[in-house]
Amino acid sequence: MNPQTPARLTGSASMSFQNPVYVVSCASVVGKKEGEGPLGSKFDLVCEEPMFGEATWEAAESTMQKEAAALALGKAGLTPGDIRMTFAGDLLAQTTASSFGIAGMGIPFYGLFGACSTIGESLSLGAMSVAAGYGEHILCATSSHFASAEKEFRFPLAYGNQRPLSATWTVTGSGACVLSGTLPVPKIPEKTDPLISAEGCVQITGLTTGKLIDFGLKDSLNMGGCMAPAACDTIYRNFCDFDRTPDDYDAIFTGDLGAVGKRILLDLLKEKGYDIESIYQDCGLLIFDGETQDTHSGGSGCGCSASVLAAYILPELAKGTWKKVLFVPTGALLSKTSFNEGDSIPGIAHAVVLEHVSKKDQKQ
Amino acid sequence: MNPQTPARLTGSASMSFQNPVYVVSCASVVGKKEGEGPLGSKFDLVCEEPMFGEATWEAAESTMQKEAAALALGKAGLTPGDIRMTFAGDLLAQTTASSFGIAGMGIPFYGLFGACSTIGESLSLGAMSVAAGYGEHILCATSSHFASAEKEFRFPLAYGNQRPLSATWTVTGSGACVLSGTLPVPKIPEKTDPLISAEGCVQITGLTTGKLIDFGLKDSLNMGGCMAPAACDTIYRNFCDFDRTPDDYDAIFTGDLGAVGKRILLDLLKEKGYDIESIYQDCGLLIFDGETQDTHSGGSGCGCSASVLAAYILPELAKGTWKKVLFVPTGALLSKTSFNEGDSIPGIAHAVVLEHVSKKDQKQ
Repeated sequence: MNPQTPARLTGSASMSFQNPVYVVSCASVVGKKEGEGPLGSKFDLVCEEPMFGEATWEAAESTMQKEAAALALGKAGLTPGDIRMTFAGDLLAQTTASSFGIAGMGIPFYGLFGACSTIGESLSLGAMSVAAGYGEHILCATSSHFASAEKEFRFPLAYGNQRPLSATWTVTGSGACVLSGTLPVPKIPEKTDPLISAEGCVQITGLTTGKLIDFGLKDSLNMGGCMAPAACDTIYRNFCDFDRTPDDYDAIFTGDLGAVGKRILLDLLKEKGYDIESIYQDCGLLIFDGETQDTHSGGSGCGCSASVLAAYILPELAKGTWKKVLFVPTGALLSKTSFNEGDSIPGIAHAVVLEHVSKKDQKQ
Repeated sequence: MNPQTPARLTGSASMSFQNPVYVVSCASVVGKKEGEGPLGSKFDLVCEEPMFGEATWEAAESTMQKEAAALALGKAGLTPGDIRMTFAGDLLAQTTASSFGIAGMGIPFYGLFGACSTIGESLSLGAMSVAAGYGEHILCATSSHFASAEKEFRFPLAYGNQRPLSATWTVTGSGACVLSGTLPVPKIPEKTDPLISAEGCVQITGLTTGKLIDFGLKDSLNMGGCMAPAACDTIYRNFCDFDRTPDDYDAIFTGDLGAVGKRILLDLLKEKGYDIESIYQDCGLLIFDGETQDTHSGGSGCGCSASVLAAYILPELAKGTWKKVLFVPTGALLSKTSFNEGDSIPGIAHAVVLEHVSKKDQKQ
């Protein structure tokens, strides 16, 4: 092993970065329903028109994703030519929302598929690239769109199909982040809005790579249940690999387990000796008001955790509301073919450690 | 930029590794038709039975992919527990061949989608990880299956649909490689078969990341034509970024342009002032005998370049047949939805520089 490795490996699948990786900017774009939810005022852009000015749902998602990326670049005062690599993906077959979205910006592009965990995969690979010096600026993004996802995985909307209470509601949203090896630059030149507050900024300090976990569940309308074992596995390994307990984090966020998956995750972790209830939230439960928005178990989709990250988690981290956060996007690795053929729905979750860097600790 | 960066960045999207990245083992598994082709005797395993013992085409592909991975691990004398990360993908919607294939081996897993360029993406991210010290051993793999791909993208086989001469034939095959920061170990313990010959072994020394290139072509039965501009862009940028000419390579291999795409690539590169014809081959034209196997323009699919790499290119590189090879898998970023909605078919190509390391140059 190279003694000057940019990360220290711990346990079987975790690493902590020895070189700084800053989240220098982030942006979120969502649809009307998300804009009416509890985080509505925090998103950068709420598009009232679900087609985003396009002719198809897929093109709508691509346009939304490109818009989130353009906003994140603009906030950092960067152009596509400044970005060395993009890591992006989405839920659609052959990840076409990204191929016809961010990939068209002319930036060297690596397409990913981790289902709804994709922003975790994207941030992990982006952070690994920045820490290793493979690029000064890296763009990470994902998206989902309620209508393109329903078309891809479920039923024609016109069927008026009944959804069970365990079902989640795919978020129309996209989140994008720019990662850099140098500190975000305070608002110079003007019109930029890097992710920096009077208190500090945000650094990615470590990660735990997800493993596929399959408990044999087959209900695609209970994806929280399918994914909870993977979230448990990743969070548990994160604790073990870094020799941490829940007390070491101020907050833990999963991606889109929803009300059903959240309960299962808490139970599974209790069986392993960890109680995270007091610091644990799920992005799918933050983005919608389940009481009034008819979203049943909560929000889901690649865009759920990505947009909540960009609109809420990262800005609060920059302010110092939390010092250390474990962000754990969760994915259900099914296709309609695998589902129709009777396969189980395995899950995966990638964990990223996000830390507040206070002004006084910053080293240029 | 960290002065001890594990790679030197060149141009806008290339890097050369400063730390060694060895391909310590590789393996290929293919179907009957591929076994009857010109490279038939070189594959590790030819399965005469297209279902690979499974009940569905998708499961057949997953099993084939796992078998290739298991063979590659075995040749390196490693078990899944020795592998720090897997980078894998395939052509199916939501990359389920990999989710139900290699991802089930219990190794930390990053799912990729680059269409038929995926092995280039996988090797790129694997090499970046090894060079940075993010893992001692990394597994890279992709697969495709003729029947699962026809089902995913084209017509029910029973239609007896006519294929134009520009169409390619999706390869039933999988290729897997183990990348490590240390030299392959000669056959100790016995029963292993690392990628090392009396003459030397193989190192990944650099890469050029692909960009999405869209010439607006829309014919999904001429994917070679759709992908050739992306191959041209990546090869051209590789020459520029590294200040190289075709003379610097002993061979250049594209993934699956086939006869039609090959001709277009040669023409496009000539327009840019480069004639690569004497050193250029396409994996899709190597794997089948177009005269006798009714494969029209040639072979295609994620498994095409991956299995030709593992069966032919890497072993010849280890022997020293070539000293320096540019391996350029090519992908067409369509889905059946994007195609049916009338979208164009953008292409992407990721280039990996593979070099022979002679015995005398090896430093332990």
